[in-house]
Formats: sequence, structure tokens, C-alpha cells
Amino acid sequence: MRLAELAARLHCVLEGDGEANIASVASLGHAGPGDLSYLADARYLTQAAASRAGALLAPPDLALPPASGAASAHARRVNWLRTPRPDLALAQALELLRPAWRPPPGIHPTASIHPTAQLGPECHVGAFVAIGEGCRLGPGAVLHPHVVLYPRVVAGARLLVHAHVVIREDTRLGDDVVLQPGVVLGGDGYGFARRDDGSHAKVPQVGVVDIGDRVEIQANSCVDRATLEATYIRSGVKIDNLTQVAHNCEVGPDTLLCAQVGLAGSTRIGARAVLAGQVGVAGHCTLGDEVVITAQSGTHGDLPAGGMYSGSPAFDHAQWLRATAVFARLGELQREVRKLRARLGPEPAKDA
Amino acid sequence: MRLAELAARLHCVLEGDGEANIASVASLGHAGPGDLSYLADARYLTQAAASRAGALLAPPDLALPPASGAASAHARRVNWLRTPRPDLALAQALELLRPAWRPPPGIHPTASIHPTAQLGPECHVGAFVAIGEGCRLGPGAVLHPHVVLYPRVVAGARLLVHAHVVIREDTRLGDDVVLQPGVVLGGDGYGFARRDDGSHAKVPQVGVVDIGDRVEIQANSCVDRATLEATYIRSGVKIDNLTQVAHNCEVGPDTLLCAQVGLAGSTRIGARAVLAGQVGVAGHCTLGDEVVITAQSGTHGDLPAGGMYSGSPAFDHAQWLRATAVFARLGELQREVRKLRARLGPEPAKDA
Amino acid sequence: MRLAELAARLHCVLEGDGEANIASVASLGHAGPGDLSYLADARYLTQAAASRAGALLAPPDLALPPASGAASAHARRVNWLRTPRPDLALAQALELLRPAWRPPPGIHPTASIHPTAQLGPECHVGAFVAIGEGCRLGPGAVLHPHVVLYPRVVAGARLLVHAHVVIREDTRLGDDVVLQPGVVLGGDGYGFARRDDGSHAKVPQVGVVDIGDRVEIQANSCVDRATLEATYIRSGVKIDNLTQVAHNCEVGPDTLLCAQVGLAGSTRIGARAVLAGQVGVAGHCTLGDEVVITAQSGTHGDLPAGGMYSGSPAFDHAQWLRATAVFARLGELQREVRKLRARLGPEPAKDA
Repeated sequence: MRLAELAARLHCVLEGDGEANIASVASLGHAGPGDLSYLADARYLTQAAASRAGALLAPPDLALPPASGAASAHARRVNWLRTPRPDLALAQALELLRPAWRPPPGIHPTASIHPTAQLGPECHVGAFVAIGEGCRLGPGAVLHPHVVLYPRVVAGARLLVHAHVVIREDTRLGDDVVLQPGVVLGGDGYGFARRDDGSHAKVPQVGVVDIGDRVEIQANSCVDRATLEATYIRSGVKIDNLTQVAHNCEVGPDTLLCAQVGLAGSTRIGARAVLAGQVGVAGHCTLGDEVVITAQSGTHGDLPAGGMYSGSPAFDHAQWLRATAVFARLGELQREVRKLRARLGPEPAKDA
Repeated sequence: MRLAELAARLHCVLEGDGEANIASVASLGHAGPGDLSYLADARYLTQAAASRAGALLAPPDLALPPASGAASAHARRVNWLRTPRPDLALAQALELLRPAWRPPPGIHPTASIHPTAQLGPECHVGAFVAIGEGCRLGPGAVLHPHVVLYPRVVAGARLLVHAHVVIREDTRLGDDVVLQPGVVLGGDGYGFARRDDGSHAKVPQVGVVDIGDRVEIQANSCVDRATLEATYIRSGVKIDNLTQVAHNCEVGPDTLLCAQVGLAGSTRIGARAVLAGQVGVAGHCTLGDEVVITAQSGTHGDLPAGGMYSGSPAFDHAQWLRATAVFARLGELQREVRKLRARLGPEPAKDA
Repeated sequence: MRLAELAARLHCVLEGDGEANIASVASLGHAGPGDLSYLADARYLTQAAASRAGALLAPPDLALPPASGAASAHARRVNWLRTPRPDLALAQALELLRPAWRPPPGIHPTASIHPTAQLGPECHVGAFVAIGEGCRLGPGAVLHPHVVLYPRVVAGARLLVHAHVVIREDTRLGDDVVLQPGVVLGGDGYGFARRDDGSHAKVPQVGVVDIGDRVEIQANSCVDRATLEATYIRSGVKIDNLTQVAHNCEVGPDTLLCAQVGLAGSTRIGARAVLAGQVGVAGHCTLGDEVVITAQSGTHGDLPAGGMYSGSPAFDHAQWLRATAVFARLGELQREVRKLRARLGPEPAKDA
């Protein structure tokens, strides 16, 4: 694609040779003259100066460092695509220049589809896919090999489901949902009632899972069905690998759950929150909109909207930074206190 | 079902209209006149007062708050099912009124069953199930689509296995075992011997996994086979999603392992213990009966029976509560010590 | 096998009856006269003295404790196989005496293999395996039932893949790779660009996963494909269950990632490092060779080679041991400081 055309499509300002031909996208270290590359900020300027990329996506005012001789000559011929959001432009450039592999419409002869199931037009159903009674999928669905849909799964348009995903009965999914390999939706919640002898009676889990639009759930993550009613993953939520969402939770719109996060039962997370890797939230908690929790932290209480929290149990992030700085020198602090006590001498008897 | 009959079946004391017809179960907020709902304790009384439920499961002495006008009129017509354990009664009510979907007996034509495998009567075998040489399953087994049994898996009665479960060779299972989607039983243990050059020789893992009766293991959890002999999950154990039980562990009867718990190799957990979410236990530890470990805690030592432990490394829970309260204000404590030192002035030379 | 022959094959020094017949391997407590058992160090001498094993693998100078009567008589007839590394000898002994079950070469009639896929000689392809367009597998591959290879997966010799593994398109694997059940290679990385309205645009993940030689990845672990270029798992790496390796990471040769470890994006781990269970590493970190991180620790910064680190955030292990010892008594430390302050009396006004 001509660079001038690419600039127009990506809504970028072109600085340089609009006739340059750009065929692909690569990182700064791997890019050649036919590749677009990108740098998000000034930390990558040295790599960018050494890059052979045919064009660079970058924020408006980023300039390569002044250099002498050959490097200087090189610097002169860089073609820039300027945009305040090179990350968003990169996402679009990849869709244009390196479209992800996607199988064509058609139904593999080995697939097992219940006669009552309804598939929209232009669907792809891979080898050994099993679709249960009464399922209904919108147009353009792609089910990779070995996907299992239990009865009565209902999904909107353009569902993309990778191999070995299991979607249990009565799960509802919106439009443009993406499920990476091994995801389990609608497994039974962990609901048991303890008998007096210490054994546990299973509480049947007869609710469902309800997934909004534009949700992506990544490899081997699990969303359990509700005991009654539904576990909700609202529109725009993105869930990384190996994450656990327990029964009756509600994850608010556009919230991010990073890898290995665990939410216990009946917890509600607001909109646009970010839970970093390995965060845990206890059951029946309510976390406000735009809460940020840093990696490996955990909370067993509610957290108000908009704050940043760290630690296990979690509290204000700035306060936690101070506390962890002292923690690393806790041995010294203890010695200091002992010294002070020694200097004050034995306690008066009345203190005992 | 008539409420009087339901009360009898659930062993509850009826207060109200025994002729009321109850068809289903719903939560307080969703229940209508044909639904049974429940409240475990007084925290839910306000919701209960606003509920339209046809009957309420509740402890004996729980009463709706006195209210005026319409609310008061409403309060009068509540039908109560009284029981000291509404949670246990709820489990029974769900079995009666909202039985979970379960496929009928029969073998799907696409299933691949080795001719030497033996299945008891009334089994259901779903699409693309693969059953290896010499497997033996008791009566009433349900294998959902895509279950894989390696050779010589032996199970008792009423095995219920969800889609994409893998049970490796020689695994033994008792009666009434439930496996949610994606569970892996009998994967190789993580056993490697380090060579002098830093590379690792695999120690073949030739033991098995042995699962007792009434065990439930939930989605995408893993129990590794032993190096030699067996990894034991004793009767009544319930394991939540994404949990790891390493080779040669033994998990005692009726113990609960919540989501994302990890047990390293050769660790033994006693009976009726509770390990909350994301807890880790190092290898070769012994934890006593009825130990409780709170979420995200970890231990690399033994823990005596009956205690409650927190932290990483874990210690007594009450002591940990005090320590974490101070931790959050560790910056202040350090400033306090510095102030005290300043007030005492420079240290005498002999102290250095 | 005659014990003398076994000693020769294991490169051990025989002390005892070379004519003894050894048929299998068992742990000290389960071994009988026909079994080889082993003890790594002196902690197991009491068990060894009570063992009925026909021979014992042990370090050169380990001797059973002097005992009286029957025990003493028993001690005299122990046959020893002496080696400085009984763990390595055990691994070899298991390969000789208890070879793991492995299915014979052949292709199951239900397997779905794309006509363009190439398989080397002596491969086993199990029931319902799906192999996509253009895949190439070296000689001796074993694919257990329900393995899914997306298009263009390329692997070296003796690939061993257990049931329900998913390998997405364009993944490259070296020789002697072992994948336990449920592993996902090449799932999309967690790459999203936040729009101004708080929603997220997916950054297409068009890179690949590149796995070296002699890598083993255990049950339900995930290695994500790179955004661009490759995520690298170098030769000799061993990854335990339920572990997450994010897009664009590089895990150096012979490094161990224990169960439930999580690496965020673009992180590089050196050679021969050990990350214990549930460790987390933030994105864009660089960890040096032979770094050891203890269980449940986490780091968001770089770590130099060769150190041992603990805590979340992690710092020097020895320093952390001191800090955690004080942490457990933090309540006392605070009381001590308050007492000292009380003894010094009210602060002079100028301090405020």
C-alpha cells in the first residue's frame, strides 16, 4: 500500500515520501524498508534511530536524536505517520496489513450439529465441533475444531470461538464475542452447604452466564454459571488467560481482568476498572468504576470508585508504596527500636 | 408443588398457606408468587420484605421488620418455611424444583469406545467421547461431549464428567464423582532432576491419581499423577476452578480447595480443611485437620490442626490481622521512630 | 533385571548381591524385595531401615543406623546402588523398569488430517485429532486423542502431545517437546489499546510462538503468541501446570516455571532461573540468569543474575526473611514504640 493511502486510512499526518510502498508491520528491531513500525514514546528513540523501517507511527512531536555521518543521513529519510495515539493506529494498521488468519465459511463434515440448532449465514464450523439442541448462532460465527456448545446456547453476530472452548447450557452471548482456546463458560459455581458432620451438600447451580457485546475472554479462563439468575460479563470486558469469575459475579463494561485474576462469588466490579495479574477479590464485594488494583493484590472489602489499590489486603496505592519501602528495612527498624529502648534503660515498675 | 408438601419434603416447619403453589426457586429480588426464595440471616431482611416470593426459607426466629401501610399488609401474607439450615434446605429445594439439565442414557454414534471398555447400565456417552482400552465405568455414568479417558480408567457409580475433561491412564475414581469442564486428572507430575550442566532430566511419573467418593473438581483444575504410587483426593473433597494439586499430594476427606489454590508436591492436607482462593502450600508440608487458610496466603511449613492462618508466609490469623493493621501505617511508624531517635540525640560512641 | 546389570546401566557402585532380581521401582514405604527404592539424603534413613526394598539407590556414604536384633539382621542384607546423584539414577531406573505407557504408531480412523499436512514415520495420531493445512511433524510424534493443530504448525522429532492440547497457527516446536493435557500454545496475546471513551480496541496478535528442544509444558498452561514476531520458550525449559506466559516473552534455556506462575508481556527471563509456584513478573522486565524467586513473590522491576528474591514486591531473600520475621510481631513493635514515646513524654512544641 502506498504510504499516502495508509496515512489517510489511519488518520495520520504524513511526513515524508507518500509513494513509499508499505506491505507489512514489524517491530523496530525487525522492520525493513517495506514495513511500518511504531514507537509509543521517547524511550524507544534510540531503537527507532537504528531501525530500517520504511515508516514510523509516532506521536506528533517525537523526533530522532541528532546524529553524525551515516546515522544522520539515515535520519533524514525516515517517513513519519504522526498521530496522538500510535497504539490505536497500530491496531488498525495490523488489521489492514497483517489480517489474522480466519477460516472460510463452511461446515466440516465431522461436525455434530443437533437438527434443532440454528446457524446464521456465513458461519464456519470446524472439525468435531459439537452443537447441542436448540442453540442459535448469529451470522458470521467461526467455531474452530472441537468447540462444544451444550444445549440452548444463544449468541449474536460474528462469534469467534477457538478450539476446545466449552459453553454450557443456556449461556447467552452478545455480538462480536471472542473466546480463546480452552475457555469454559457456565461451569457449575462452587456452591456447597456444610452439613453438621463436616461433609458438603451440593447446591445445584441452575443459573446461567450472560456475556455482553465485544467481550474477549482468553485461554483457559472460566466464568461460572450463577446459582440462580445470571453471572454477568458486561459489554467490552476483556479477560486475560487463566482467570476465574465465580458464580453470580458481575463485571462492569470495559473492565480489564488481567491474567490469573480470581473473583469469588457474588462480587460486583464497576465499569472501566483494571485488575492486574493475579489479583484476588473475595466474595460479595463491590468495587467502584475505574478502580485500579495492582498485581498480586487482594481485597475482602468494598473499594470506592476511581482509586488505585495495592497489597493483600489492599489499601491506597501511594500509602502502600511507603509501607513496602519500610517493610524491606523492617529488620533495621526493629534494631533501631531496640537500641532506643536500651538507651532509655529498664522500664519503671509501674509500666509492667 | 403445594407448599405443605414442599415443607414436608424439606423437613421445614410451615408458617402460612400450605395450599400455595410453588413451582420454582429464585433469589429475593427475582422471585414471584410462584417462587420459593431464601434468606440465611438478618442481613437480608430488608430485601426479603420487598420480595414478591411466594414463600421464604429462613431460620426459625427471623421476622420481617415491622412496617407501615402497604408494606405491613405485605408482611402479613408471607409464607415461611422454617429450618435452622436454610442453605441445606435450599439445596434440596433446587433438586426438587429446578433439576439441573442432564442428558438421557444412550451412546452417541460418533463416540469412540475401545472394544475392551466396560460401561455399566444407563450410561450417557456424548459426541466424540474417546474411551481407551480396559476402562470400566459404573452404572449411570454421564460423559459429555469430547471427554477423553485414557486406558484403564476405573470409576464407580454415577460418574458425571463434563466436556473436554481428560482422565489419563490408570486413574481410579469412586462413586458420585463430578468433574466440571476442562479438568485434567493424571497429567505428569513436575519431576525433574537437575544435571550438573543445569539442564533437567525428566523423572518418569508412573504413579496414578486416586479419587474418592462424592468428590467434585471444577473447571480447568489439575491433579497430577504421582511419581510412584498415588496422588490421593479423599472422599467428599470439593475443588474449585483452576486449582493445582501436584504429584504425591493427599487431600483429606471433605476438605475444600477454593479457586486457584496450588499445592506443591507430596503435601498432605487433613480432613475438613478450608484453603481459600489463591492459597499456596509448598512441597512436603503437612496441614492438620480443619485448618483454615485465608485467601492469597501461603505456607512452606507444617500447620497444626484446627488453626486459622493468614499471610505469606502464613501465621496465626488474629496476629496477622494486627500485623496488617500496623503494616498499612508503616510509614508513620518509621517516622515515629526517627522522631524518638532525634529527641534522644546522638548515640554515645560506645554504642557504635 | 539382575542387580549387577542394573548397577552397570545406572553407573552406580554395587554393594551387595549382584544376583538379586529387581523388577520394578517403588517408594521406601511400598517397596518389596523385587523393587528398587531410593533415598536422597539422611532424612529418610529411618524409613529406609524399615523398608523391604530389594535394593536402595543412595549417595555413597549414607549408612543405615546401627540397630539391634531383627532390625540389625535386616540392615545387613540391604543391597546398595551408590551414586552421588540418586535422583538422576532414579530417573534412569524408571525409564528402564517402569516405562511410561505410550501408544503404538498408527493413525486412528476418526482423525481429521488435512491432505497437505506431512507426518514423519512412526507417528501415532489418536482419535478425533485435527491437523490443519500445511502442518509438518517430525518422526515419532505421538498425538493423543483430541489434539488440535491449527494450520502450519511445524515440529521436530518425537513430539509428545497429550489430549486436548491446542496449538494455534504457525507455532514452531523443536525436538523432544512434551505437552501435557490442556496446554494452549499461540492463543492471542492480551493486547488492547484504550480509546478515549474507555473502551478497548483489539491489537491483532499476528506473531507466533517458538518452542525450543526438550521443552515440557504441563497441564492447562498457556503461552500466548506475540503481537509481532515471536514469544520464545528456549530449549530445556520446563513449565508446570496452569502457568501463564504472555505475548512477546522470552524464557531462557533450562529455566523452570513452577505451577501458576504468571509472566506479563515482553518480559525476558535468563537461563537456568527458577520461579517457584504462583510467582508473578510484570511486563517488560528483564531477569538475569540463575535468578531464583520464591513462591508467591512478584516483581515489577529487573533482577540481576544469580540472586534469590522474595516478597511482593520482591527483594533480597535473606533480607526478606528478616523482614517477615519482624512482620509477624509488628503489633508488638508498634506497642514498643508507643511505650517509648510515652516514656519520653509530650513532644516539645518546636517538633510540631
